Amino acid sequence: MKIDRLQAFSDGVFAIVLTLLVLDFKVPNYQIGHLNQAVIAQWPTLAAYILSFFYVGTLWLFHHDYFAKIKQTNRQLNVINLSILFTVTLINYPTSLLSESIAKQNNADIRFAFTCYALVALVISALFWALYRYMAVHHELMRHHEQFYQTIKNDPVRSVTIYAIALIGIQFNSWLGVFLILMGNIFHFIAYLRLNRSVTRYHLNGKDD
Amino acid sequence: MKIDRLQAFSDGVFAIVLTLLVLDFKVPNYQIGHLNQAVIAQWPTLAAYILSFFYVGTLWLFHHDYFAKIKQTNRQLNVINLSILFTVTLINYPTSLLSESIAKQNNADIRFAFTCYALVALVISALFWALYRYMAVHHELMRHHEQFYQTIKNDPVRSVTIYAIALIGIQFNSWLGVFLILMGNIFHFIAYLRLNRSVTRYHLNGKDD
Amino acid sequence: MKIDRLQAFSDGVFAIVLTLLVLDFKVPNYQIGHLNQAVIAQWPTLAAYILSFFYVGTLWLFHHDYFAKIKQTNRQLNVINLSILFTVTLINYPTSLLSESIAKQNNADIRFAFTCYALVALVISALFWALYRYMAVHHELMRHHEQFYQTIKNDPVRSVTIYAIALIGIQFNSWLGVFLILMGNIFHFIAYLRLNRSVTRYHLNGKDD
Amino acid sequence: MKIDRLQAFSDGVFAIVLTLLVLDFKVPNYQIGHLNQAVIAQWPTLAAYILSFFYVGTLWLFHHDYFAKIKQTNRQLNVINLSILFTVTLINYPTSLLSESIAKQNNADIRFAFTCYALVALVISALFWALYRYMAVHHELMRHHEQFYQTIKNDPVRSVTIYAIALIGIQFNSWLGVFLILMGNIFHFIAYLRLNRSVTRYHLNGKDD
Repeated sequence: MKIDRLQAFSDGVFAIVLTLLVLDFKVPNYQIGHLNQAVIAQWPTLAAYILSFFYVGTLWLFHHDYFAKIKQTNRQLNVINLSILFTVTLINYPTSLLSESIAKQNNADIRFAFTCYALVALVISALFWALYRYMAVHHELMRHHEQFYQTIKNDPVRSVTIYAIALIGIQFNSWLGVFLILMGNIFHFIAYLRLNRSVTRYHLNGKDD
Repeated sequence: MKIDRLQAFSDGVFAIVLTLLVLDFKVPNYQIGHLNQAVIAQWPTLAAYILSFFYVGTLWLFHHDYFAKIKQTNRQLNVINLSILFTVTLINYPTSLLSESIAKQNNADIRFAFTCYALVALVISALFWALYRYMAVHHELMRHHEQFYQTIKNDPVRSVTIYAIALIGIQFNSWLGVFLILMGNIFHFIAYLRLNRSVTRYHLNGKDD
Repeated sequence: MKIDRLQAFSDGVFAIVLTLLVLDFKVPNYQIGHLNQAVIAQWPTLAAYILSFFYVGTLWLFHHDYFAKIKQTNRQLNVINLSILFTVTLINYPTSLLSESIAKQNNADIRFAFTCYALVALVISALFWALYRYMAVHHELMRHHEQFYQTIKNDPVRSVTIYAIALIGIQFNSWLGVFLILMGNIFHFIAYLRLNRSVTRYHLNGKDD
Repeated sequence: MKIDRLQAFSDGVFAIVLTLLVLDFKVPNYQIGHLNQAVIAQWPTLAAYILSFFYVGTLWLFHHDYFAKIKQTNRQLNVINLSILFTVTLINYPTSLLSESIAKQNNADIRFAFTCYALVALVISALFWALYRYMAVHHELMRHHEQFYQTIKNDPVRSVTIYAIALIGIQFNSWLGVFLILMGNIFHFIAYLRLNRSVTRYHLNGKDD
């Protein structure tokens, strides 16, 4: 398969995942004349939506820039990529769990929903780790591998670690967990900025087309 | 990231948003033998659907023609664009609020639904404003910037103003609000026509490929 | 806008419409141990799904081959195309009405559902007619217009006529209506075959790239 | 139609089918404070999701590599391809039947759900068989047909046979049926690996671009 077809397909899945998240917004049951109260009570849905939209959006930017460095794909890479897409589509589910459990304000349920969220995030980061490891061994599939890889190679390990700590932290204190999940997402964004800067540098140096 | 990949991704999100709107059409609960009455009573769903379809459609045409003038993207632009896409996917929700509240004919709820709609529209226009401001400063990312930008630079300010007035107007009179939201959408469409004319002129003058 | 971007966007909307149709298939309420009976009782959903899938599929093939003859787009064409896409996404709704009303076996409701279906189909064909008329006047937008247009110019009028007769027929006899809607869809398919043959002939003659 | 447009459209449908599968994950009804138990009781949904995601994913990889060997399309091929896409979108439905019936633990219902799943899988394989047969006769549409086709020509017959045996086996023993469906999916994956290896070999030999 040509690498740009793989990327177009992956971009398509990311675009659909991003957009399907909105289906979680349903008109609430409300007492006629008090729609406003019912909608305002849905703030957890909005919060969970914002969290997941920018998380998936960052993952897309990241995935896109990373695959732009790959010049060829093969069977193994296709399977790793399909697994990443699988876990990304899954995010939809813990997002719903979050908004539902926060709306119902039970602490044990909220903790469980955050646990699911952190678990999916951890698996996503672990699969990116597998991707990095695989590409490190098969650098013939990549353009200008060494230097590029050196800069970013520890990023997935770091985010796996953050989500693992989040998973443990949540069991003791929900809000500590939330804080760590947010840290994880922000870390992704920073990692993306670094990846992008490194990709851009190659472009400017004319080392890459 | 290459600008055409960013555009393909954004086009994908717009296409999905447009199509998901139809999921708001559900077969109504009806008394057997009187499906026709139940369907006719769903006219608010159709009206809200038409409103949002052509609103999002216009936004797409607009977004598409604007990004066709950009020759390169960067981190900041990616984040602005992702934020625009975020608010565009949100439209789905006030659309449902509108059709539901109009069907139930409570004036306070209708007013609230229009308020939500105008609010989302205002934020979308504000983000386009941010986009215009950003591009005005970074004209190195654009082709033939000056003249093109002069023609259209005040459009988002105008539509933000329209939606802000709509937001206030709705609180006094729902139908004034509706009228202003429609004005806002029609204004978008006119703005698109002007943008398109200006883009086409460059093409004809051979200043652009 | 470049014509291939318009086509990619339209193809995207068609692909999503085709796939969303399946969401009408929901696991039925069933008595435990008798899932098979409940599923078999859903045959109208399957029938409506098959009808709409191949109808939308044919429309896509048709739309695709027609736009492949257009070399440039403009504001008016964008608006006509957006209107066509609007009515195509609408098909989802009468499809649900059909499967629901047939399952409930009330004749008046079935007749009404078929009326809605024929109405949407008629509007789609009417918009294709508008497209043909517009392109006939603006042949500067098309490649090798004359001969190509002569072959197919009456097709939309014919299908509008078929659906108009279907609309009337349904009021007297549901099954006559069904028969005419099927005729309409089959006519679309034949029209597509003719369009495709004519497009292919140009290719073989080397008149077109 | 150009073959790459047909492929882009098909890729789009596959991407949407893959992503829509996640909509089957709904927040379960749960007793407040016991969300964890309700979510854990949803394991059949996760299992069915994993099964179908990797099945559709494999079909996509397969479809993609196969169509990469085709250099031109025509009316008949478009119709065969549309039929394949039709059955692929259908998978959504037996996936829901599976997760629902396993959750309710009635053996007769589970057997019926597996029967539906195997039936859809059988029809998909049968349509791939039709595709292979058609391409065998029309090798003018393919690049380097003979050798390539010899390697893979019996694959669809084999998978039709596996699903047919699964269909019969399920009637006697649900778990035998499950085992055979899994075998069928794994067989698809192996067939994909063989197809991919054969495609790659041509690339390396410079026989294909």
